[in-house]
Amino acid sequence: MTETPLLLTPGPLTTNPAVREAMQRDWGSRDPAFIALTAELRQRLLGVAHAQASHVAVPIQGSGTYVLEAAVATLVGGGDTLLVLINGAYGERMAEIARRMGRAVEVLRWDERQPVDPATVAEALAGKPQISHVAVVHCETTTGILNPLADVAAVVASAGRLLIVDAMSSFGALPIDLRHMRAAAVLASSNKCLEGTPGVGFALIERGVLEGCKGRSPSVSFDLHAQWSGFEGNGQWRFTPPVQVVAAMVEALRLLEAEGGPPARLRRYEANLEMLLRGAAAVGIDLYLDRALQAPIIATFRAPENPAFRFQTFYDALASRGFVIYPGKLTKGESFRIGCIGAVTPADFQRLASVLGQALAEAGV
Amino acid sequence: MTETPLLLTPGPLTTNPAVREAMQRDWGSRDPAFIALTAELRQRLLGVAHAQASHVAVPIQGSGTYVLEAAVATLVGGGDTLLVLINGAYGERMAEIARRMGRAVEVLRWDERQPVDPATVAEALAGKPQISHVAVVHCETTTGILNPLADVAAVVASAGRLLIVDAMSSFGALPIDLRHMRAAAVLASSNKCLEGTPGVGFALIERGVLEGCKGRSPSVSFDLHAQWSGFEGNGQWRFTPPVQVVAAMVEALRLLEAEGGPPARLRRYEANLEMLLRGAAAVGIDLYLDRALQAPIIATFRAPENPAFRFQTFYDALASRGFVIYPGKLTKGESFRIGCIGAVTPADFQRLASVLGQALAEAGV
Repeated sequence: MTETPLLLTPGPLTTNPAVREAMQRDWGSRDPAFIALTAELRQRLLGVAHAQASHVAVPIQGSGTYVLEAAVATLVGGGDTLLVLINGAYGERMAEIARRMGRAVEVLRWDERQPVDPATVAEALAGKPQISHVAVVHCETTTGILNPLADVAAVVASAGRLLIVDAMSSFGALPIDLRHMRAAAVLASSNKCLEGTPGVGFALIERGVLEGCKGRSPSVSFDLHAQWSGFEGNGQWRFTPPVQVVAAMVEALRLLEAEGGPPARLRRYEANLEMLLRGAAAVGIDLYLDRALQAPIIATFRAPENPAFRFQTFYDALASRGFVIYPGKLTKGESFRIGCIGAVTPADFQRLASVLGQALAEAGV
Repeated sequence: MTETPLLLTPGPLTTNPAVREAMQRDWGSRDPAFIALTAELRQRLLGVAHAQASHVAVPIQGSGTYVLEAAVATLVGGGDTLLVLINGAYGERMAEIARRMGRAVEVLRWDERQPVDPATVAEALAGKPQISHVAVVHCETTTGILNPLADVAAVVASAGRLLIVDAMSSFGALPIDLRHMRAAAVLASSNKCLEGTPGVGFALIERGVLEGCKGRSPSVSFDLHAQWSGFEGNGQWRFTPPVQVVAAMVEALRLLEAEGGPPARLRRYEANLEMLLRGAAAVGIDLYLDRALQAPIIATFRAPENPAFRFQTFYDALASRGFVIYPGKLTKGESFRIGCIGAVTPADFQRLASVLGQALAEAGV
């Protein structure tokens, strides 16, 4: 087995060996043992967001994008209008998904360095009664910017609309407490702050909202009401689940609890980011966002202004030293990203700091 | 780690330890090492069906059902009509998928103990010029019946229509040679006769057909043209792939080649079925289908007529002895199913035969 570098990306991530070990078994997907594992998965997912009293957990096979599409397909009907709040590529994708599906879509856009603004949202909702649903990205992976989720949720709730939260890059670390915040659906995947392996997306959906969505989805596969009915009926997944990925995800959720839950995980990620920023500053690499807006999930850096800088060489130089980083996704200006999440600690970022200078030199700076 | 029973089901299956071992590593999904693995995956999938000259391989995240839906979404346009040939639950599901998507659907139905009849298909195509696409299930997992794929393909090709083949339960074992048979799309998943772990579906699609499908899908996620463009552009998956499942699938494809390819695998499965049938006959359990129609993939048996028989007790009795079987899915009459596929050999079925009598006795017979 080749030595694996640390994955400092938005995912797939470096996982705990216990998570990968959980994939060493075969499971019959309709066997009682796997039904019990699925029940534990669904219960633990609710627990992460304190949603046991209000929501149901509906995992589906596939990537995070799939569960975004499934949530739009299941919740937003043909006569509804979805307002998407956009300050990065993932907001744009949500709007594209809804448009391709034939749903009515409105958008509000901000610069990718600005968080979405709840007052502007309130104004839009007041002026456009046809808007039935609002979608927001909690932490935009494009830049790593943190959007003010609780404030947006309050505005949407007080306007009587339903909120769909893309919590892909935040769920399991950043605070999401559904006892104190109203959200019709919160969506995320197995392989980001939960630190599982990729292959499962999931939705926490308000029970009362989901009950009204029977038969609404234009897609058999992306029908979260039908998927939920399957779980409630016999405890089984409607279609063949990725059994090893599910087992790894349950193990990852147990490890999250053992670590102390989302607050403890957030503290580790914050310590990772601090160490990363110290190392970057030492070699003159600047954060793209204002520090106060940068979530401790994935940090975007401006590429050095030196015209000799070549990202691919920099990437290779770091990879050869055991660190896989990530290209930028900004619409303007060269950048790169370094993730703070996964089974990594400040000590790893200290080691990274010690090689950043050499890697920059190799990359022409 | 609990001792895992053998999974004698339609999947997920018992896998080779080397396949599970391949899941012990983390991969950066945009890293050159994983891009190379993806290229190997796509090349090997084409090789299994001798399709290198005519088709492209497009894997997607998720279950087999997802790739069926993605193929319908990508290939069948709003003005097209899909004829679905049905002799079991998976044909019914294909029709439901297309209808929910708003596509025009025609169906031809046969009793689930009868293979689809190419002459009837030819007649239907002659009488209904609006039919643009035909969908057929190669091996119907409902009963395990084998449909005459090559004959259906010849009829569809000579009528100038496009064929979509659900090869979920056959790909990798039963003969599919795309040099000698025309099929616009052949669809399967990682976890059946390929003996990988579940989490990836894939389509082999005629290059010329796929080239004409840009922007046709109503789904961003289930757009096989866009997924293909992603692979062709930078070698990467559009959305986060289940990296460990992909690594396991590549290892499984290497093992398929080492075994001698689909012909050798089919011989093993046939030997499994023979041993299974001998053991079943010895305790008076009858095959549901005519022997000549039963593919060596998953066998359906009539439940004993004894009114004391309880399937769940029988299931538990076998599970406690290390064998997980599968419930029946017939529309009429009680039945159960036992799979012949996965990393299992005739010796396993000999062991199964030695405990069938005891398990029946425990189940009241």
